[in-house]
Amino acid sequence: MRLSSSPRFEQFGSVRIHQVQRVVELDAGRGRTSSSSSSCGTVAVGRHDLSAVESRMAVVVLCMNEQSHTVESVLSGIPHDCFVVLVSNTRRAPSDGYEAEVAHLLRHCADTGRRAVAIHQKDAGAARALREAGAGQLLDPDGLVRDGKGEAMFVGLALAAWAGCEYVGFVDADNYVPGAVLEYCKAFAAGLHLAGGGAGDAMVRVAWGSKPKARGGRLLFDRRGRCSRVVNEWLNRLLQELSGYGTECIATGNAGEHAMTMSLAKKLRLAGGFAVEPFELIYLLQGLEDGPTTDKAVGGGGEARLAPVHIRQIETRNPHLHDDKGDDHVSGMRCQALNMLYHSHITPPSMKTALREWMVAEKMLEAGEEPPRERVYPAMEDVDLEVLSRVLSEASETMVVSVQPPLPHEGCCCWS
Amino acid sequence: MRLSSSPRFEQFGSVRIHQVQRVVELDAGRGRTSSSSSSCGTVAVGRHDLSAVESRMAVVVLCMNEQSHTVESVLSGIPHDCFVVLVSNTRRAPSDGYEAEVAHLLRHCADTGRRAVAIHQKDAGAARALREAGAGQLLDPDGLVRDGKGEAMFVGLALAAWAGCEYVGFVDADNYVPGAVLEYCKAFAAGLHLAGGGAGDAMVRVAWGSKPKARGGRLLFDRRGRCSRVVNEWLNRLLQELSGYGTECIATGNAGEHAMTMSLAKKLRLAGGFAVEPFELIYLLQGLEDGPTTDKAVGGGGEARLAPVHIRQIETRNPHLHDDKGDDHVSGMRCQALNMLYHSHITPPSMKTALREWMVAEKMLEAGEEPPRERVYPAMEDVDLEVLSRVLSEASETMVVSVQPPLPHEGCCCWS
Repeated sequence: MRLSSSPRFEQFGSVRIHQVQRVVELDAGRGRTSSSSSSCGTVAVGRHDLSAVESRMAVVVLCMNEQSHTVESVLSGIPHDCFVVLVSNTRRAPSDGYEAEVAHLLRHCADTGRRAVAIHQKDAGAARALREAGAGQLLDPDGLVRDGKGEAMFVGLALAAWAGCEYVGFVDADNYVPGAVLEYCKAFAAGLHLAGGGAGDAMVRVAWGSKPKARGGRLLFDRRGRCSRVVNEWLNRLLQELSGYGTECIATGNAGEHAMTMSLAKKLRLAGGFAVEPFELIYLLQGLEDGPTTDKAVGGGGEARLAPVHIRQIETRNPHLHDDKGDDHVSGMRCQALNMLYHSHITPPSMKTALREWMVAEKMLEAGEEPPRERVYPAMEDVDLEVLSRVLSEASETMVVSVQPPLPHEGCCCWS
Repeated sequence: MRLSSSPRFEQFGSVRIHQVQRVVELDAGRGRTSSSSSSCGTVAVGRHDLSAVESRMAVVVLCMNEQSHTVESVLSGIPHDCFVVLVSNTRRAPSDGYEAEVAHLLRHCADTGRRAVAIHQKDAGAARALREAGAGQLLDPDGLVRDGKGEAMFVGLALAAWAGCEYVGFVDADNYVPGAVLEYCKAFAAGLHLAGGGAGDAMVRVAWGSKPKARGGRLLFDRRGRCSRVVNEWLNRLLQELSGYGTECIATGNAGEHAMTMSLAKKLRLAGGFAVEPFELIYLLQGLEDGPTTDKAVGGGGEARLAPVHIRQIETRNPHLHDDKGDDHVSGMRCQALNMLYHSHITPPSMKTALREWMVAEKMLEAGEEPPRERVYPAMEDVDLEVLSRVLSEASETMVVSVQPPLPHEGCCCWS
């Protein structure tokens, strides 16, 4: 994969946010990774370097009530060497959609010699394992894992950590273009390689180039959803509050497709629902802590406590063509980011006031109302993965592990 | 790339038509090509083998009045090691769309270190070169190359042959999904490798898995266009006439996306317009000759005059999402295949009668009318490529060659 080079970045404490890079070639040929001093303004990441990341990366596929045809198509787009973690919240009655998904996954693994694991978000054994491992906050009053995207990501991340993967990426299962899934995974690998290949903490966030919508009998390609624009604008405003300089550097506030080093993933605290992706950025800006004080917060202090966290943003080429689940509704929920921003201790009072007024004007709040607080879960490093693993294997009712006999060119090394 | 294996084929004389293979993984990982005796029902073609084909393959991009954004997107999907041949019939007035396409191509080549050539179909120098090289049949009464897809393919094929490429593939420039373009090229390389990697003649034809259409404000995924179904049905009926056995083995009669060995491409006679793709099959079934007699026709004779021609058919995963230029019109023209079939000397009289009656019933013909004859051009092996090359370099007004200084990982070896 070849990307436009990204010589510019902005640094906030230990967080280094790189300017968006565009995908220039999906397949950069058989050459090696080009030196960054290349004069043509692009950088190619060679196949060997992509493979080195892919073979250590779990790709968590988040699944809810998709057509099984779509799930199969997404699987075909994930590079073979990645370890697949399917987390499903698909309904199980009257017909068992999860069972169909697992059947497709196992068929795919048998056909390809690939390794994968699947689990249902409402698995009672998984809930028990999470509770005993120290992540009881994930559970609802019925004692099962709550609904929500952040909650599904937490479960997927736990399985990826348990399997010993060094990188973890997230893709949605409702994608109609397997070539886009492949591009996301290659962008993850390219960005993680460029960010240091495992040395230090890094995250890659995808900004898709366009989103086709059927309007008036034809296809139009939108650049960015309205909520994405709003969330990016407010996040950039926060950066200006931190540094004093106006910026547009965040273009991936709501990035569903993103990946990171496991070392970073273990430190992050994930938020619930659709607040999860923007909150990763807010949490990093808070200085990898969620305490109420700001004296350790990042943003200009000379104290070099932490190795830099590289955030790479990559604009992909393929249209993001996904299941239309009623965009207005989802779009509103995706703006949960603003609630997180409002309640962050690094957001200055004047910005909180402006944000609340804006939300009232946009009818996202009643006048005088406070934005609701979203849930924030413990970091994976505070979860006892040994307990999680033991209880899961004893008690899980839905977990399915596909461990194929190694094929001549079996490459995944992350399953121990 | 991993494909479902294709143990079955049907043979007609020297033509071996393989059952459709499906793409199972877009990226089969870093392993080597699996042995065909693999028990899991699939076959992986390793990157090394894909690269070996790609670096010897020209990809001809056929372009007419597309948005330059779309052309750029298609370029990003073509594997780096392939040699790009852009053949454009884009209007040049009132504004010069071709000039914009060339600017995009040169920008892309400068960014990527890739080699490419572009030419306009209405280039007066190219017309002169073709006439002097023995392909004057391509020209219209004005002395320029005729409009039409087959005619554009002829020009692209001539440039690919001239450049010394060992394989040639064709993709349309109106594709909105660069990941699909990548998949087509990988399928070309995988199929050509499986067909013997240059030993003997081979062709790979793509059947896309679905075609999204905007209907009633939502996207629906159609399996196959009506004209494709019709053309496949009549071609399969011809096969039954040849062998006596009913068959559905042809699934790619109208395949716009296809590739072949240069040795085969040089022997083929291309038809004009949209008859070009189905006529390739008809011509091969005619026994690589277009004479009026049938004594050398294939179809059961024991005489083994020719090395087998392998025709691989691959069903791709990505949706085929392309510019909508008014499908009814194009669809009608694509059925030009039926005219070719009607006039082929291997089509038995009874089938000709049935075909003509059907075309009258479908209002493609008036009662009593004969299907029109389509143009058929000479085989490239009968064109003097040396003359073509010399006159082109002297007289072409629109040809642009991008020969980049070799980058550290420059791989294309087909430009001599």
